[in-house]
Amino acid sequence: MLKTNENRGNLIILSGPSAVGKGTVLRALLEEYDDVCYSVSATTREPRKGEVNGVHYFFMSQDKFKESIENNEFIEWAKVHNNYYGTPRNYVEDTLKSGKDVILEIDIQGARQVADSFSEGVFVFLAPPSMEELKSRIYKRGTETEDVIQTRMSNATKELEEIDRYDYLIINDEVENAVNKLKSIIIAERCKI
Amino acid sequence: MLKTNENRGNLIILSGPSAVGKGTVLRALLEEYDDVCYSVSATTREPRKGEVNGVHYFFMSQDKFKESIENNEFIEWAKVHNNYYGTPRNYVEDTLKSGKDVILEIDIQGARQVADSFSEGVFVFLAPPSMEELKSRIYKRGTETEDVIQTRMSNATKELEEIDRYDYLIINDEVENAVNKLKSIIIAERCKI
Repeated sequence: MLKTNENRGNLIILSGPSAVGKGTVLRALLEEYDDVCYSVSATTREPRKGEVNGVHYFFMSQDKFKESIENNEFIEWAKVHNNYYGTPRNYVEDTLKSGKDVILEIDIQGARQVADSFSEGVFVFLAPPSMEELKSRIYKRGTETEDVIQTRMSNATKELEEIDRYDYLIINDEVENAVNKLKSIIIAERCKI
Repeated sequence: MLKTNENRGNLIILSGPSAVGKGTVLRALLEEYDDVCYSVSATTREPRKGEVNGVHYFFMSQDKFKESIENNEFIEWAKVHNNYYGTPRNYVEDTLKSGKDVILEIDIQGARQVADSFSEGVFVFLAPPSMEELKSRIYKRGTETEDVIQTRMSNATKELEEIDRYDYLIINDEVENAVNKLKSIIIAERCKI
């Protein structure tokens, strides 16, 4: 008889500065909570061993990708190291229509694109407990030069100023806490009137 | 460095028709989740054996209660069977200021008073899965005459029309589900920007 907004799913956008731990939090969430669908990206890069089309990525040619951009078929896209990556509008729209929530892990620029190009979304900002902690996480990855680290830190400082555009803020102090909060946000959003 | 609205607590108002299971859900929540304070009511009725002032109720005289009403010291109050019951504004305000969430279990009329007299609040409507189920829950209490049951059902039908004034809707199908949703709402509200 009574329904919350269970007929249509919510698009959850998990964003935050580089190295804050978005991927770790998302993987931990998906392991323990399966009422949300991971948004499958499209890409022009070659499939790696074991990667399945439609599961890990939707693989497509550069020509097809560029045509899809022209046709507004991505809610966000970016070019990284000569390859394109994007979130297919149809896939997201169809999943939401089927009543399932979709979660999208994305950088701050991508989140801004989604806000501009898609009329709905629950925007969650994942932030480090402090800038010192973020720096230490970038160092721990051990793959970056000092210059790149400085750039990332400077970007992160600017990105933190965008928090006000988001609906929720999660401080990623411990993965377990962050996952619990993210799950709570997803459940609460389904109860919204 | 970064803070959500953790400095001030949220006032959570759990409301819904009579016999929907508000008390059961609240007790189950408080058993497993202690980051929220139960709002202690004031009353003019005599303390029962074992009841402690300031824990179960704030006990006060009729004169004192009426004076407090005049002084706008309750965020809601009602007279039931010649006794007064009310939610002390100071207690709620001080607890919220201390950074803790407060939860208030209250009927629909009381929730309306809170909405009118207090400038904040997260309003949660607890609804039965169906009117048939609500009727069966009223019958199970076994304490009401057929007339009273009819009145309650008719009130409930009217009360369901007020759902739009609320922030969240929880269908009380299973206590465990309802508690999980309520807890999620409380956690998510603390992450709100």
